Amino acid sequence: MPSISKRGEQMPASPIRKLVPLANAAKARGVKVYHLNIGQPDLPTPPNGLEALKHIDRTTLEYSPSEGLRSLREKLASYYHRFNINVDVDDIIVTTGGSEAVLFAFMACLDPGDEIIVPEPAYANYMAFAISAGAKIVTVPSSIDEGFALPPVEKFEELITPRTKGILICNPNNPTGYLYTQKEMNQIRDIVKRHDLFLFSDEVYREYCYTGAPYISAFHLPGIEEQVVLIDSVSKRYSECGIRIGAIITKHKELKKNVMKFCQARLSPPLLGQIVAEASIDASPDYMLMTYNEYVERRKFLIDGLNRIPGVYSPIPMGAFYTVASLPVDDADRFCEWCLREFEYEGATVFMAPASGFYTNPELGRNEVRLAYVINKEDLGAALRVLAEALKAYPGRTQP
Amino acid sequence: MPSISKRGEQMPASPIRKLVPLANAAKARGVKVYHLNIGQPDLPTPPNGLEALKHIDRTTLEYSPSEGLRSLREKLASYYHRFNINVDVDDIIVTTGGSEAVLFAFMACLDPGDEIIVPEPAYANYMAFAISAGAKIVTVPSSIDEGFALPPVEKFEELITPRTKGILICNPNNPTGYLYTQKEMNQIRDIVKRHDLFLFSDEVYREYCYTGAPYISAFHLPGIEEQVVLIDSVSKRYSECGIRIGAIITKHKELKKNVMKFCQARLSPPLLGQIVAEASIDASPDYMLMTYNEYVERRKFLIDGLNRIPGVYSPIPMGAFYTVASLPVDDADRFCEWCLREFEYEGATVFMAPASGFYTNPELGRNEVRLAYVINKEDLGAALRVLAEALKAYPGRTQP
Repeated sequence: MPSISKRGEQMPASPIRKLVPLANAAKARGVKVYHLNIGQPDLPTPPNGLEALKHIDRTTLEYSPSEGLRSLREKLASYYHRFNINVDVDDIIVTTGGSEAVLFAFMACLDPGDEIIVPEPAYANYMAFAISAGAKIVTVPSSIDEGFALPPVEKFEELITPRTKGILICNPNNPTGYLYTQKEMNQIRDIVKRHDLFLFSDEVYREYCYTGAPYISAFHLPGIEEQVVLIDSVSKRYSECGIRIGAIITKHKELKKNVMKFCQARLSPPLLGQIVAEASIDASPDYMLMTYNEYVERRKFLIDGLNRIPGVYSPIPMGAFYTVASLPVDDADRFCEWCLREFEYEGATVFMAPASGFYTNPELGRNEVRLAYVINKEDLGAALRVLAEALKAYPGRTQP
Repeated sequence: MPSISKRGEQMPASPIRKLVPLANAAKARGVKVYHLNIGQPDLPTPPNGLEALKHIDRTTLEYSPSEGLRSLREKLASYYHRFNINVDVDDIIVTTGGSEAVLFAFMACLDPGDEIIVPEPAYANYMAFAISAGAKIVTVPSSIDEGFALPPVEKFEELITPRTKGILICNPNNPTGYLYTQKEMNQIRDIVKRHDLFLFSDEVYREYCYTGAPYISAFHLPGIEEQVVLIDSVSKRYSECGIRIGAIITKHKELKKNVMKFCQARLSPPLLGQIVAEASIDASPDYMLMTYNEYVERRKFLIDGLNRIPGVYSPIPMGAFYTVASLPVDDADRFCEWCLREFEYEGATVFMAPASGFYTNPELGRNEVRLAYVINKEDLGAALRVLAEALKAYPGRTQP
């Protein structure tokens, strides 16, 4: 039997994935499972998007251009202009979700052995895409005690080698909900400029900033415009993760050409998703406000609730719809598994993402979990009660 | 300015892509351009598929499972059973088009430096995906004089090295329309078995076999069931290239797990496309017969017409909807460019794909073009008249 690739064997097996069969087994036993583990919003897709879907009157569902439909790219350009991101239609390449945007950005910028520096905890799939590209992710740890603020510049500079090609940030951040400050963004700009690096900036949660502090795009930073590779997606902001529409935005001419080669090889991003995405960008201010307000309420409700549970601590996330909380447990992997396998309270349990999956060093975040507030407030309340009871009953509790 | 990846620079620049701006310029001059260059069928998507699209009544367009919707995978399994391909639902992983199926098959089977042997001329994007995976494509040339039959086994065995991990075939073939015989498939099986290789088999054109000769799937070959990696797509058989739904089918347990890691990293194949694909599999026998008969007629019409033009020769393609023809020209790249840039006949010209893009050695196929019969018969007739006149007028003609 021929052997499979070592590359695949190196791909991280997410601790969330390992728990999915346990969650399914719990459901099969009749236990209600509250899903705090994934970033699948429960809110409706904008009516415009759903309407556009019903009115597709094509008789042949053809390939779209490899760079995406021009009409969608024009809409995206206007959308970015609203955020003072000054990009042209030709700077925007439509991808199959933000996932493909990250993969193609890495493929087009990095060669095997090249390195990028990423503050952790970080979205686990960055690692998977780096392995796909043969590149190496080098991490700078941020900590819950500092509220996941950006580590000092020196920590980045210590890690720079001749193979360093870029820095990757996610802002607002998944998994921490952190929003980088102007000062932090200026520091990043200085490093990127000084060492001639790419700045990969995943900004898919820009609609969800809660504290009045400004959202600062990588494209707002003067002097590195051609070094920025913006990763975007409509998935989260319009609750349409399934349509698989994202984008790479870059002003680096050679890079655009290089990305396009990967786009041409896969022929076309999804046509139907593009039609829905284009209409969704016209979502009414009411729709956008409704989703925003919903997350504002849930955030307050979840974070207040978490911090009221003895031994639990969550910083206040400034954006996105996640938080990373520390729990009074020996091992969050074990605790999350125990909740699904052995625990129930009033017929229910909780599915949380152990934070170990977001760190390259699994010892960091050993007692942390990521919680997504993508379920309604009533369910969040029930989930918080279950969590409080689970922490009382868990044999590996570390605090009295 | 940071430099882009060498990987991207190695990606082949397709000769078709280079001609697209010239075709657009011709259209801008008011010249009618007959597109024989691409595999974008003009036939309608099945009514079932289009109806399913209109009846999507979800309010949130969520992620689907990373392996694809179970209902679609069940439909696909029944579909394969009709072709005596005995695979289970669990052997089928839904991908974002056949393109992603090829990419993930390579990523999950091949490490950088690994080699696969591919008969050429071959679909140009195999090369792009191999470069993405850091793998090397080694080609065995087939020739128009032999009707693009499979080269003798010895030619494959000469190329096998310790790094050889697989053989890739496309059957029925793009670009040649060749359909491998039982004898040829048995030879491939023997090599694959003897050298413990993967057999990557791209069978997306199986519905289009015209000569009464049987379609032989790689899964029909006894003794190598776990070595076969079948690549499939609904794009061509239901004229729905834009929905981006394909599949990897394998019985190799470790490989399935490995492929799933890449699938999980990109989260989900397109939800909307899956719904359309699932309904399309129920296309009526009338629909399937209509498309089949249409290609049968066009094939005869095109091949007869080509072979009537002095100096032109096309073998009779047995399947798919392409043919590779030789022309009485010095250089098909130059001729195709000349047709778009300088020639018109009764206000029209033709866009053909120079065959050099399908060979690793561009000298092979120097006087060949690929023609797709995905436009209607009337337009095919007009295109043939234009081609005949163009060949008379072309300054680089090689025959009197």
